Amino acid sequence: MKKIINAPEDVVPEQLRGMELARPDLLRYMPEANVLVRADAPVEGKVALVSGGGSGHEPAHGGFVGPGMLDAACAGAVFTSPTPDQMLEATKAVDGGAGVFYVVKNYTGDVLNFEMAGELAQAEGIETDYVVVDDDVAVEDSTYTSGRRGIAGTIFVHKIAGAAAEDGKDLAGVKEIAQRVNANVRSMGMALTSCIPPERGEPIFEIADDEMEIGMGIHGEPGTERKKIEPANSVVDELAAKVLGDDVDFTQGEVAVMVNGLGGTPVMELYIAYAHLADVLKREGVNVYRSFVGEYMTSLEMAGFSITLLRLDDEMKGYLDAPCRVAAGRPF
Amino acid sequence: MKKIINAPEDVVPEQLRGMELARPDLLRYMPEANVLVRADAPVEGKVALVSGGGSGHEPAHGGFVGPGMLDAACAGAVFTSPTPDQMLEATKAVDGGAGVFYVVKNYTGDVLNFEMAGELAQAEGIETDYVVVDDDVAVEDSTYTSGRRGIAGTIFVHKIAGAAAEDGKDLAGVKEIAQRVNANVRSMGMALTSCIPPERGEPIFEIADDEMEIGMGIHGEPGTERKKIEPANSVVDELAAKVLGDDVDFTQGEVAVMVNGLGGTPVMELYIAYAHLADVLKREGVNVYRSFVGEYMTSLEMAGFSITLLRLDDEMKGYLDAPCRVAAGRPF
Repeated sequence: MKKIINAPEDVVPEQLRGMELARPDLLRYMPEANVLVRADAPVEGKVALVSGGGSGHEPAHGGFVGPGMLDAACAGAVFTSPTPDQMLEATKAVDGGAGVFYVVKNYTGDVLNFEMAGELAQAEGIETDYVVVDDDVAVEDSTYTSGRRGIAGTIFVHKIAGAAAEDGKDLAGVKEIAQRVNANVRSMGMALTSCIPPERGEPIFEIADDEMEIGMGIHGEPGTERKKIEPANSVVDELAAKVLGDDVDFTQGEVAVMVNGLGGTPVMELYIAYAHLADVLKREGVNVYRSFVGEYMTSLEMAGFSITLLRLDDEMKGYLDAPCRVAAGRPF
Repeated sequence: MKKIINAPEDVVPEQLRGMELARPDLLRYMPEANVLVRADAPVEGKVALVSGGGSGHEPAHGGFVGPGMLDAACAGAVFTSPTPDQMLEATKAVDGGAGVFYVVKNYTGDVLNFEMAGELAQAEGIETDYVVVDDDVAVEDSTYTSGRRGIAGTIFVHKIAGAAAEDGKDLAGVKEIAQRVNANVRSMGMALTSCIPPERGEPIFEIADDEMEIGMGIHGEPGTERKKIEPANSVVDELAAKVLGDDVDFTQGEVAVMVNGLGGTPVMELYIAYAHLADVLKREGVNVYRSFVGEYMTSLEMAGFSITLLRLDDEMKGYLDAPCRVAAGRPF
């Protein structure tokens, strides 16, 4: 296991502390709960957004905490849901009196725990609501999921619902636009390699040196097909066909596009994939409004990528373009 | 070789085209020269900044082209200097009448070719000058280098000299501050794994499953020590001691800090390294002005990282904080 870590059981608190130290202007770390909150939380009168999930998907979710996106991110152990207690602590830390909204990826543990946290918070007088993001078109029902999995499309929910909350929408309004984003966002990924969770110390699945897996989940959940590695363009064709063939008609209006690296894939390869995806979208009559190429929702050091399409309306465009200030990836 | 590519010989033009397609608001691709220029180039009356080098270090350098940083980036083949002809084409494309300034990493091929490009440009009536960045404290004289190698500290030269040019400094003024940044920036890296250049198809060096190399270059040049993997904190201690023990006194004034991922190392591990680096700097009496954690200057899919410290003066701080708009890493 080749990793830049200390004790495997310390990776989560150490990285959260590192984020706070690197961006004290943005982030405050609550070590007792493994939660990162906006440095200026709570923001009075604003609906607060909380997300989170298992660790190992960095920069998700702590990297998206800041003005215009999330108010807090709860970090579970690697690939393990945070607990309701953690979520409750986050909720209390960011509640500004207008309610707290949870953005939950569709994994059974995450959904149950956020639901329980919401009940605990409501018992303490804090209004809560949530959206479950299930953008992965690869498979129905998976290792940790009933229905579709939530993957990189979640970042678009963070951005657009976060901007809506910043803009003053109430809890019902934030929920409505978060659901609208989820209804219009579809993703699918592929992996060339497995990854090694630090405490496990070995790969979460085996894959041969000349093989790839299509439709893989971000915790190594099985995909739709294991086969010999193909050229990038063929892989993009296959992922794009599945995303475009789903129930959202992306030829209507304009779309936001994301090519998301899974952690071990270099920037060069993501842009090679994007080049062909842009050609495919043009050929299929899909109009690209903006595109995002980089690491947003990873799986430790897994090599691979996912593509995400979001069909935009005018309100979503405005919130996508609204200013935000977060740690993820932004160089200056 | 597990890569998301098509033909190995096409990786450079395909990725440059992908960058243009992803960010048409920022970038224009000149396919005949494998050069990315600012979409609005040339900017009349402004000193133009050109950088570049072998490909495989993405997001460097095309990811740093845009208002407030570079006017153009020349992309050689993987780990191979671009040619003087490419550099001349870039120079002519971005010259706005105030001269063109080259930011060159200290590798023999890069330095010779940029010098020759400067002579060719001057023969065509374009004033040029350059700085050679040599921030890597690991070794003197290396595989491709006489003197010290240029690595991630180069990004601070791009940022600060780029902002100075945007601010209206003339060619001599841009050179002066670029030299001042180089005189105050020191870096050192380590690697856990090799990387595989696409056309070569095999690793550039062999390293055992339980070994790391300290002081490795970004093209796999040998470092100072090959040894068993140690905890992250020990590795950070060793790199920081070497950087702090060099000739710049970082306890004076304030410093910018970068923890740079080499391509295959996930975000989690970079923040674990930063957490301890922040502790070391505090203990040593170094005041951190701002920090940057992410991938800035990579080596394909190599696992590893480097640390960079830059001692700032007030003018550098202003230019570090000046707005810029580039593709690298910035999510929204």
